[in-house]
Amino acid sequence: MEKELLQRLTEAVTKQIFVELEASGRHVHITTEQALALFGHPLTPKRPLSQPGQFLAQERVTVRGPKGEFREVAVLGPERKEAQVEISLTDGRQLGIDPPVRMSGDVKNSPGALLIGPRGQVAIPQGVIAAQRHIHLTPEDAARYGVKDQQVVKLQVFTARPCIFEDVAVRVRPDFAPAVHLDYDEANACGFQKGDLGRILP
Amino acid sequence: MEKELLQRLTEAVTKQIFVELEASGRHVHITTEQALALFGHPLTPKRPLSQPGQFLAQERVTVRGPKGEFREVAVLGPERKEAQVEISLTDGRQLGIDPPVRMSGDVKNSPGALLIGPRGQVAIPQGVIAAQRHIHLTPEDAARYGVKDQQVVKLQVFTARPCIFEDVAVRVRPDFAPAVHLDYDEANACGFQKGDLGRILP
Repeated sequence: MEKELLQRLTEAVTKQIFVELEASGRHVHITTEQALALFGHPLTPKRPLSQPGQFLAQERVTVRGPKGEFREVAVLGPERKEAQVEISLTDGRQLGIDPPVRMSGDVKNSPGALLIGPRGQVAIPQGVIAAQRHIHLTPEDAARYGVKDQQVVKLQVFTARPCIFEDVAVRVRPDFAPAVHLDYDEANACGFQKGDLGRILP
Repeated sequence: MEKELLQRLTEAVTKQIFVELEASGRHVHITTEQALALFGHPLTPKRPLSQPGQFLAQERVTVRGPKGEFREVAVLGPERKEAQVEISLTDGRQLGIDPPVRMSGDVKNSPGALLIGPRGQVAIPQGVIAAQRHIHLTPEDAARYGVKDQQVVKLQVFTARPCIFEDVAVRVRPDFAPAVHLDYDEANACGFQKGDLGRILP
């Protein structure tokens, strides 16, 4: 009984100090219209993601660039107002696309790509980005860490290849769950393993 | 004339404070015996590398793992006493090989791979590693930065996605040229571009 309490206490304290890291693989966001064009129907949720309301769809697409393509790329829902393809810089080399490093939603003047589904193709004129590393926080978490929405912070990661990431964007919303999002270049550069933690530096 | 002098002085001062970054793509080191088996002759130098005496060979090999292969992989010379395949963790996923993060030469109990050349194949029982990030320095550079051979330091990189790499190994030899070696996961995670610099932190 005491041991269990100690474990729960440790977990609670850990959450006060550290934020869990997550690695985001390449994925695609699409509009409802594009879902109809690619699959003939809207996205079907397969499993929920860490951010409340977001889901991995059962549907997958091919993303094609001038030099190559990735098949079976994850599509995340719900549908958005504009398509967005999030890849790593390593992925970009393989596709022949040089994505700018941007926050999600900031796709202006970014390169396009061809999306191929079982029912049809959609050429998006822009939307391919490498996601800027960022931290999702609730207002309560943000207050505890002493940071604000849109702030840029340093994040120390306690991983197999430890480092301190600079230029990490903070995003605060009541419906967020606390998590650091890294892409696979960053995840592999720091030797990320599931369960690894980071600390926002003062 | 004065402008030229200023530029030369600036470059000299910069070198006193910063170390140039280099990104190492996946590559292979082989023995003379293996070169004969793969190509029918020893390695032919194509161009010198930044480290004196090292060269990129004209010959290239396919590296095959349980899940995939890379063709046309660079072979570096001169030949060594034992084969070594240096890949990123991202590469490892594609090959189906999970390389340990090691210093060059430390291949004990690392996974193997199949090397395929135009004349034959060589199955190496071990030697696939992800190179630990490291800094090559001459004894004079090392003295100036206040570091020693085998020391592990932090390195701040001034790149598009800035960060501070911890666990960076220092290697000191009179025949080294000063350079930081990152793999492509690290290079892309920090947004490396040719000419970018790093600073060893005290």
